[in-house]
Amino acid sequence: MRRILRSRLMVAGILVVLLMVGTLGAQTRREIQFPDILGYKTLKCDLHMHTVFSDGLVWPTVRVDEAWREGLDVISITDHIEYQPHKADVPTNHNRPYEIALARAKERGILLIRGTEITRDTPPGHFNALFLDDVNPLDTPDLLDCMAAAAKQGAFIFWNHPGWKPDRKGWFDIHTTLYEKKYMHGIEVVNGRSYYPEAHEWALEKNLTFMGTSDIHAPSMLEQSSPEKHRSMTLVFARGKTLAALKEALVAGRTLVWYEGQLIGRKEYLDAMFDAATTIADIDYSQDNTVRFRLTNHCDVALELERTGKLGPKSVSVPPHASTLIRAKVPAGSESHRFEYAVSNFLVAPAKGLPVSLEIPPQITIEIGVETEN
Amino acid sequence: MRRILRSRLMVAGILVVLLMVGTLGAQTRREIQFPDILGYKTLKCDLHMHTVFSDGLVWPTVRVDEAWREGLDVISITDHIEYQPHKADVPTNHNRPYEIALARAKERGILLIRGTEITRDTPPGHFNALFLDDVNPLDTPDLLDCMAAAAKQGAFIFWNHPGWKPDRKGWFDIHTTLYEKKYMHGIEVVNGRSYYPEAHEWALEKNLTFMGTSDIHAPSMLEQSSPEKHRSMTLVFARGKTLAALKEALVAGRTLVWYEGQLIGRKEYLDAMFDAATTIADIDYSQDNTVRFRLTNHCDVALELERTGKLGPKSVSVPPHASTLIRAKVPAGSESHRFEYAVSNFLVAPAKGLPVSLEIPPQITIEIGVETEN
Amino acid sequence: MRRILRSRLMVAGILVVLLMVGTLGAQTRREIQFPDILGYKTLKCDLHMHTVFSDGLVWPTVRVDEAWREGLDVISITDHIEYQPHKADVPTNHNRPYEIALARAKERGILLIRGTEITRDTPPGHFNALFLDDVNPLDTPDLLDCMAAAAKQGAFIFWNHPGWKPDRKGWFDIHTTLYEKKYMHGIEVVNGRSYYPEAHEWALEKNLTFMGTSDIHAPSMLEQSSPEKHRSMTLVFARGKTLAALKEALVAGRTLVWYEGQLIGRKEYLDAMFDAATTIADIDYSQDNTVRFRLTNHCDVALELERTGKLGPKSVSVPPHASTLIRAKVPAGSESHRFEYAVSNFLVAPAKGLPVSLEIPPQITIEIGVETEN
Amino acid sequence: MRRILRSRLMVAGILVVLLMVGTLGAQTRREIQFPDILGYKTLKCDLHMHTVFSDGLVWPTVRVDEAWREGLDVISITDHIEYQPHKADVPTNHNRPYEIALARAKERGILLIRGTEITRDTPPGHFNALFLDDVNPLDTPDLLDCMAAAAKQGAFIFWNHPGWKPDRKGWFDIHTTLYEKKYMHGIEVVNGRSYYPEAHEWALEKNLTFMGTSDIHAPSMLEQSSPEKHRSMTLVFARGKTLAALKEALVAGRTLVWYEGQLIGRKEYLDAMFDAATTIADIDYSQDNTVRFRLTNHCDVALELERTGKLGPKSVSVPPHASTLIRAKVPAGSESHRFEYAVSNFLVAPAKGLPVSLEIPPQITIEIGVETEN
Repeated sequence: MRRILRSRLMVAGILVVLLMVGTLGAQTRREIQFPDILGYKTLKCDLHMHTVFSDGLVWPTVRVDEAWREGLDVISITDHIEYQPHKADVPTNHNRPYEIALARAKERGILLIRGTEITRDTPPGHFNALFLDDVNPLDTPDLLDCMAAAAKQGAFIFWNHPGWKPDRKGWFDIHTTLYEKKYMHGIEVVNGRSYYPEAHEWALEKNLTFMGTSDIHAPSMLEQSSPEKHRSMTLVFARGKTLAALKEALVAGRTLVWYEGQLIGRKEYLDAMFDAATTIADIDYSQDNTVRFRLTNHCDVALELERTGKLGPKSVSVPPHASTLIRAKVPAGSESHRFEYAVSNFLVAPAKGLPVSLEIPPQITIEIGVETEN
Repeated sequence: MRRILRSRLMVAGILVVLLMVGTLGAQTRREIQFPDILGYKTLKCDLHMHTVFSDGLVWPTVRVDEAWREGLDVISITDHIEYQPHKADVPTNHNRPYEIALARAKERGILLIRGTEITRDTPPGHFNALFLDDVNPLDTPDLLDCMAAAAKQGAFIFWNHPGWKPDRKGWFDIHTTLYEKKYMHGIEVVNGRSYYPEAHEWALEKNLTFMGTSDIHAPSMLEQSSPEKHRSMTLVFARGKTLAALKEALVAGRTLVWYEGQLIGRKEYLDAMFDAATTIADIDYSQDNTVRFRLTNHCDVALELERTGKLGPKSVSVPPHASTLIRAKVPAGSESHRFEYAVSNFLVAPAKGLPVSLEIPPQITIEIGVETEN
Repeated sequence: MRRILRSRLMVAGILVVLLMVGTLGAQTRREIQFPDILGYKTLKCDLHMHTVFSDGLVWPTVRVDEAWREGLDVISITDHIEYQPHKADVPTNHNRPYEIALARAKERGILLIRGTEITRDTPPGHFNALFLDDVNPLDTPDLLDCMAAAAKQGAFIFWNHPGWKPDRKGWFDIHTTLYEKKYMHGIEVVNGRSYYPEAHEWALEKNLTFMGTSDIHAPSMLEQSSPEKHRSMTLVFARGKTLAALKEALVAGRTLVWYEGQLIGRKEYLDAMFDAATTIADIDYSQDNTVRFRLTNHCDVALELERTGKLGPKSVSVPPHASTLIRAKVPAGSESHRFEYAVSNFLVAPAKGLPVSLEIPPQITIEIGVETEN
Repeated sequence: MRRILRSRLMVAGILVVLLMVGTLGAQTRREIQFPDILGYKTLKCDLHMHTVFSDGLVWPTVRVDEAWREGLDVISITDHIEYQPHKADVPTNHNRPYEIALARAKERGILLIRGTEITRDTPPGHFNALFLDDVNPLDTPDLLDCMAAAAKQGAFIFWNHPGWKPDRKGWFDIHTTLYEKKYMHGIEVVNGRSYYPEAHEWALEKNLTFMGTSDIHAPSMLEQSSPEKHRSMTLVFARGKTLAALKEALVAGRTLVWYEGQLIGRKEYLDAMFDAATTIADIDYSQDNTVRFRLTNHCDVALELERTGKLGPKSVSVPPHASTLIRAKVPAGSESHRFEYAVSNFLVAPAKGLPVSLEIPPQITIEIGVETEN
């Protein structure tokens, strides 16, 4: 039977939806959905970006507005000290991007870190120094002088896009020097749309903080449409949303990199994220020797599982905020069943997915606390 | 500085995203995001739908597959007993839709309720009877006989689309009879794209369970794209995902109706849903006599707030899984500030939004437990 | 019957699609689809926009890249002469935005017009002067001197956002002076998301060229997604894509304004656009006294028709690149049937839609040249 | 400068857009955009689909509504004669799907062909027979009898999914028999999400008509969103939209298959489609020894070009209704430049793209008929 009055009411309903959509552009922020883990707050951070004050193409306040809209909590504008292609029109002034953006950041509740990009030919390449009080002392010809000036201000320093120039990439003596002098605390494993397997290895070997950044120069084209559209960023697990807490977390290396449908970082944080972001429900043993359960993904990155053990389908994919059914023959008996997989897009090392084990309680438990019937 | 190697890596990244998207069609389910409330599980239910066995256009298993894909937990196929326009090709068999769909429902973990639509001219109109063991005894000419047969099986019965035929709508003696004989436990305040303000009033006055259904006849065209695209449904707050728990909750009236960007129902459940679905963060007093905070919406329905008190902007809109900043002049002093609003799309009565009060702690608290700095 | 091998091939297919999508961001341009009319080329023009050189937020080349991506053919960067809020960081230099953007415009094939915004308090308000050789001579305190300097360079001048300041809006003596001295050739009927009915009237009364512009300050967030997402612009009907041809067309008033799903302008161009953008097909008389035909819309703006005559449904809506069936009782006989409608979103005057007449040949013709059978 | 009044007008504007969108579901049809070629009308056809009358999951009228919405011109419902899994509930009646759907097809202007699927184990497999007057005579145990019965009615017959069962696929004697007896006129090179390279070869070798079909069983989930979302189909180049014209075109082999971003078929039709669907504009020689031009794609399938000659970039991608710039060094002189490419997704044979040559007139011509200046 069809209802006659629908169309008019539909228009009213659409209006409600649309008023909402209309508002999006102006004031709203799409929240990125990753759970807090290990008692820390999960801060979404992009700590490498440019403006017209070096070779970027936007005014500093634009970076704050973009961050708000896209769900970031923390940003740092890191214009180049040494590379100033707009100098003829925009005279060099290293502290201006921060000063201009600060009022807007306070208004929006975005935590803004004063930072800069130290720019040398490759090798050694480029470095970001964050948590500065004044960028100007870093404008010196000698790299070690510059790093010393940053260190004097207590800067957190990381190596940018280590694989940027493939013909000249590598870990050189100068990098060892910087590392040993405690002038290098982190490394970009991801920069924009690039992922660097060597940097991934170095981060693990040398215990450098995993960094992922957008290094954005043009306006960000992202709108609040979907989790699939996100910029490369660093998830930082901090005690709170303050400069001090953020710095403590970066120094302690509590980060993951979110890069094109992948999370990259230390196993302990990937583990905690997987646990916090998934649930198992609707366990059913009603078919002989078979268990069926629903795996739900509560975060913004898909889960791509490849079987490493004996139970379960060869591969399982669970999109963000979606569920997938897993059905498998299991041995008879009263023990739990372990479904062992590698999460191929949670990288614990280059091309190596996080090992996970989904433990499903045995049939007997289910019969007592029956959850589903028909 | 631009990165040279991006494009090839971008393709790889896109591939990851796409494998995920490709999987969606086949096996995945978009989860509807509403929190559990008051210690109950929030079940997403559509308890009115049709198949080729009456005047619908799909095979019964299609209803299960649609339910899975769209994030429903519970459905009832309720084909008409008396209206069988496909009879020449599909001979009448009232229990077949349930029987055919059951195996698929078990496979998918969808709770399937045996139900039917009792179909009389308006008035009295149509009614759904759920939790039946056998539909056939309800196929009798006299409505009261039919209702008695349903009641004998312990059915939960609700009045369908009470405003369907505007020229003949209303609460007639027959409705009083049904109500007094305990043959009517719920009422569709929403059916498909139609909302009935009179039914809304009757549900409140007579303590009938609020029902919202799709009454879908054609294939559901919804894909897993976005919260804005959802069918009308009933959120049931149950002790678990079992037939018994669902029936208990329906009889107790623990429901809300989700209808085109609105939630409709009793104040206590709307209240609990608003509380569970919102958070306040980033409270800031750094501007004189002004407080600024971020209101975040964690559920799939937008929040549309209209000011009813003295503080805050006239209206505030927060899309699903998004945040909006609220900034307002506040009186000096050490007391909390109450921002009083009506949530215009959380209906406690026709055209009456849920009253809410956002309580913001005073400045003194904030100075101690400082959360944001720059 | 289900096919087994599908999934692997599907991934391959998706890959093809995605490679395409991946390319979009980098180099491709979504073409706006409006037909050429009356023997002229339909150029998509946005002739009012800002950069960091006045109060805009992007570098001049960004405006070219946005124009390319969004399907524009012609732009003019029109930074304010008198309003320079970024002056402390970006010293005033009126010709720089054009000079910086020119190389990119040539590279992309975007026609770039040197222009500026003359900025006075309201009244008289703001004006754009286009086709300048040098902006500097316009930097004079007296408005008439400034206009004379623009006129001396052969500028095409239009009045910007005439309804911007509602409390001070209106046509004042100064506007009459400018108009009579031939210092005002066009008027913004649309600026960004604002439409000015009074300006619409003045454009008709005083034969001013209809202008619609974005007046964009922030980065453009539009991507190549859909016709519904477009900036306000002017369609100019020119002899070719050259500065001379564009200027000739603007002076001659051959324009339409595209604004949020509406076209606004002189009846002759709206008429020609409707004719070129629609086709009628599948005419069918197989039901008694009834004609049924399909109306197809080949352009990027929807058609919203309201019946003004006797035949046809009360309203008809045809989305971009879509068709709608029209079915109506018609008188018997051998004459054509005229379906008379107003196109409510093709505005010939404020709140007045373009009158159109859909002429459907009589049954006899159809019987001879039969097009559809079953 | 920001405009104050925008927000209210924006809502009005959004409303216009939304009314349009709201209408989409109910009555509108997204037009598939492929040009007519070689003087023929390009009909979009899906000639293989199922309903509840065999193993499909929808009522026959649903197939018409889906076809309308998705822009198809012609369909055939081809339920299995021999495979009737719903027989217990829907007694076998081979002509019913056509009879039930016909009235809706006439109403919508969809050309409906009476057809059926002849269903045998593999080999020989399944075949569709179209343009029947009565399906019942084909319900015979012997395949050659069945084929003879179809041929007697003048059926057009094609082999379905020849690669469906990989372990038993191949061209067997029975296929030679059918072919020689003129019982096989076409072959599915594409069925649903599967493409069969062997079938592609056989179509070329034996001059069989190229067929691509959805073989849809479930409801079609496609909405009118985008060209990327389309079902597999056959483009038929016919003299008109009539049964006779369609049959003539199928017998003559004037078809292309549209399959997941690819067109597959005979070179002459791919050639004509490429020519009709592309334009070259904005030719520019302003940089030394370099030509730059814009390649625009006016159809719903992307163009993926791979260089086979000496001029131009290695690969060029042009999404539907978009343009891409091509820039290349060219030899000095007064001759035209030929950019030779293979269109890798216009398949003239398995894994072999259509060769095309983009001819760009020399500089001298451009100087005379100058098109772009700045």
